Amino acid sequence: MTFEQWMRATLDRVETALEHTLPGTDVAPARLHEAMRYAVLGGGKRVRPLLVHAAGELTGASAQAVEAASAALEMIHVYSLVHDDMPAMDDDALRRGKPTVHIQYDEATALLVGDALQSQAFVALTAEGNGLNDAQQAALVRELAVASGSLGMAGGQAIDLESVGRKLSRPELETMHRKKTGALLRASVRMGALAGAHPGAEALASLDQYAAAVGLAFQVVDDILDVTADSATLGKTAGKDAQHDKPTYVSIIGLDASRELAVQLGRDAHAAIQPFGARGQRLAELADLVVNRVN
Amino acid sequence: MTFEQWMRATLDRVETALEHTLPGTDVAPARLHEAMRYAVLGGGKRVRPLLVHAAGELTGASAQAVEAASAALEMIHVYSLVHDDMPAMDDDALRRGKPTVHIQYDEATALLVGDALQSQAFVALTAEGNGLNDAQQAALVRELAVASGSLGMAGGQAIDLESVGRKLSRPELETMHRKKTGALLRASVRMGALAGAHPGAEALASLDQYAAAVGLAFQVVDDILDVTADSATLGKTAGKDAQHDKPTYVSIIGLDASRELAVQLGRDAHAAIQPFGARGQRLAELADLVVNRVN
Repeated sequence: MTFEQWMRATLDRVETALEHTLPGTDVAPARLHEAMRYAVLGGGKRVRPLLVHAAGELTGASAQAVEAASAALEMIHVYSLVHDDMPAMDDDALRRGKPTVHIQYDEATALLVGDALQSQAFVALTAEGNGLNDAQQAALVRELAVASGSLGMAGGQAIDLESVGRKLSRPELETMHRKKTGALLRASVRMGALAGAHPGAEALASLDQYAAAVGLAFQVVDDILDVTADSATLGKTAGKDAQHDKPTYVSIIGLDASRELAVQLGRDAHAAIQPFGARGQRLAELADLVVNRVN
Repeated sequence: MTFEQWMRATLDRVETALEHTLPGTDVAPARLHEAMRYAVLGGGKRVRPLLVHAAGELTGASAQAVEAASAALEMIHVYSLVHDDMPAMDDDALRRGKPTVHIQYDEATALLVGDALQSQAFVALTAEGNGLNDAQQAALVRELAVASGSLGMAGGQAIDLESVGRKLSRPELETMHRKKTGALLRASVRMGALAGAHPGAEALASLDQYAAAVGLAFQVVDDILDVTADSATLGKTAGKDAQHDKPTYVSIIGLDASRELAVQLGRDAHAAIQPFGARGQRLAELADLVVNRVN
């Protein structure tokens, strides 16, 4: 199977899993469920689910198990976008090429959509018959909860808020991103692997190294695209970082050095998964995708 | 031990468990952690933790296990209060006798405090060495996630929002409350019981009946107090329901009938736990507390 074929097939499976994990619009409260589905379905690059699937292949995770894990990761990611777009945070009107949830519905609904999506992620991980045994369910919840909380994603967003208009050093910027986006990307790789036969501490350490490189590359490329791409290509408002005076790789080390850094991080990601040989192929291809993406 | 002694001892244990479960203000991001602690510590009736402890006594749950479960429940409850008080929702300035989080800090922080407290609840349930085995961790996460999400608490809040200014029938009002507050109270009783030796389906059904009666009683008394108590006694703004034209038991069936209903629900709660005999003593006493409370 070529990478393109694998991507297409995997994205289809991700979409179907999300479809089934989210309550239908025929279930009360209908408007909340409609808004949750509006936020999650039919959009997004699905980077986290793709990482889950690729890592799950390493450890022979069942289709059902990786689908549960990848749906959970994407729901956490989307909840963070919905809350982040609200007027109290980034105040953004466009996301994944559509009006943001608080624009399409209202602020109270956006708040509840985010809250309920977070809960739904943990529902997905612990649903009976989801292909994960008790120990795996507990382990995956542990990974996801820590990565989402105040020491991970939510903590990174708090640091991000405090840093607006302030000049961050490069280590400070890295700390912020390691939490804000890195923690969830790392959890994606770990959760995919833990959804199969336990990979062992050494393999998990290699996967952590891979995820750290990919996570940082993702952010560096994000900062590059915010300067070089237009809103239509991005599906979200371009030029936002400069407008909000946010510290970015581009503002700290410049555009050329940022491009070089992204390429180097791609190489680091490849090196980290060398031990897995051919079994790491999809992870290697995903690292390239992250480095070379245009939106 | 008298009920008063049990209450005091249990509330102390709950406070200590919450203290330890929440990251310290010496951990980055410090301001977020300070705000999370501000929201959670030193206030509140702790009804959900008390129910967890009382139900845990039925099944011989370890001290550590009930402490993890009760901390998780209280963090979910507090996150819902923090978000509910925000301008996009109820827009309230007073909670537990203190300025609400978005007043004391700011809206973005309140949003993140709620988000991170939800994650932290699932961290507490799956922390290694928390006295719960894998199967219990998975089961408690399942209970809590379903009870918090769009079919439970968050769904009830969505129905609440839609019902402002609308005349609800009594069954509609009950459906809303069963989700908005009932689901989490039910989860408290179930999670407490499941933190010990598995109680079996019949006992869980009795506990569900107990929780349904207590949950509804809690809400009926809330509606009564909103009319009869003052803000200082409540620690939150009194008279809010009428002001916001919210449907309540008092507005639908009147004050006297509401008082009778609360007493009847207290009797129903006692009847439901009859099978447990003396082991159900604390649950019975808590039902009385809920019916007779003055704030």
